[in-house]
Amino acid sequence: MDLLKQRILKEGKIMGNDILQVDSFLNHQIDVDLFNKIGREFYRYFGGEKISKILTIEASGIGIACITAQYFNVPVVFAKKVDTKSLNRNAYESEVYSLTKGKGYKIRVTKDYISPGEKILIIDDFLANGNSVMGLIDIIKAAGAELAGVGIVIEKGFQRGGKMLRGMGIKLYSLVTIDSMESGKISFA
Amino acid sequence: MDLLKQRILKEGKIMGNDILQVDSFLNHQIDVDLFNKIGREFYRYFGGEKISKILTIEASGIGIACITAQYFNVPVVFAKKVDTKSLNRNAYESEVYSLTKGKGYKIRVTKDYISPGEKILIIDDFLANGNSVMGLIDIIKAAGAELAGVGIVIEKGFQRGGKMLRGMGIKLYSLVTIDSMESGKISFA
Repeated sequence: MDLLKQRILKEGKIMGNDILQVDSFLNHQIDVDLFNKIGREFYRYFGGEKISKILTIEASGIGIACITAQYFNVPVVFAKKVDTKSLNRNAYESEVYSLTKGKGYKIRVTKDYISPGEKILIIDDFLANGNSVMGLIDIIKAAGAELAGVGIVIEKGFQRGGKMLRGMGIKLYSLVTIDSMESGKISFA
Repeated sequence: MDLLKQRILKEGKIMGNDILQVDSFLNHQIDVDLFNKIGREFYRYFGGEKISKILTIEASGIGIACITAQYFNVPVVFAKKVDTKSLNRNAYESEVYSLTKGKGYKIRVTKDYISPGEKILIIDDFLANGNSVMGLIDIIKAAGAELAGVGIVIEKGFQRGGKMLRGMGIKLYSLVTIDSMESGKISFA
């Protein structure tokens, strides 16, 4: 998506070696018009699958998932991040380690909201090491549902998530893939 | 909104004395079609104001705010919840105490995303004691912006938030107000 590349080049800020901040349109302030273009593009790619639900993770995935869900005409479920050790027997849970935050947390989806046989599309803002997507896949498997694919707004191609998911045979579609952010310069794949 | 009342009566679960769980359509699983009806209703009420931005708070406000923003054709900004004590000089911050969680946290909006003179509409899922809305109002004031109004999906009329905000002369519109949840029975205003 050229439009997205332009916004990243114009407004993205590189923090440290591998953090791209796109707070001005993606995950703090939200450009809803851009989100509609993103949603339409995900629908163009995944619309042929019989998606029954979109799964994402709080907080920054929720807006993209909701706008995208309008094109698919399906509900959204967002996994909640919890920092309790206690097990909730009415929920599917998975452990996620965040490299950005340097700590782990648990993600949780109440069992009522993913059913066996459902076809689930995962939508998220970033793909880096793939830890949060792997957590969502754990939950889909535990529910006996089927993963239809993974739609990502920005993939960091220099981290391992994309390669890992494609290696598993997962239908992964990243709207933009960044190959490198070295010396403060963003290069796309 | 009758449709919303029906969904609350059919799917809402009362936890303890004053927590209403509406996970099946509002804040875990999201009924995007219902959210569009909610957004349209907020626009019917607040559409006459010259809203420049919608402000909400992560996580469960984001979906409603994004869908609603489509009707107003404005961006969304969501305040982030942070549990650090450290001050961020590039952000407007406010302290919020959550009765539900029994603890306080800080909410934060980067200064770039609310400007003096803007007309801000606050959107949130629940209004109980009004603490999170008051925190958002603090941020709007600190930015030198104007509060156009507050749109709430479910107001708990038996808690003090609604009375407080109306007493301050704020234009508050709650789609549904619950008067009581005593003995497991939900009564609307």
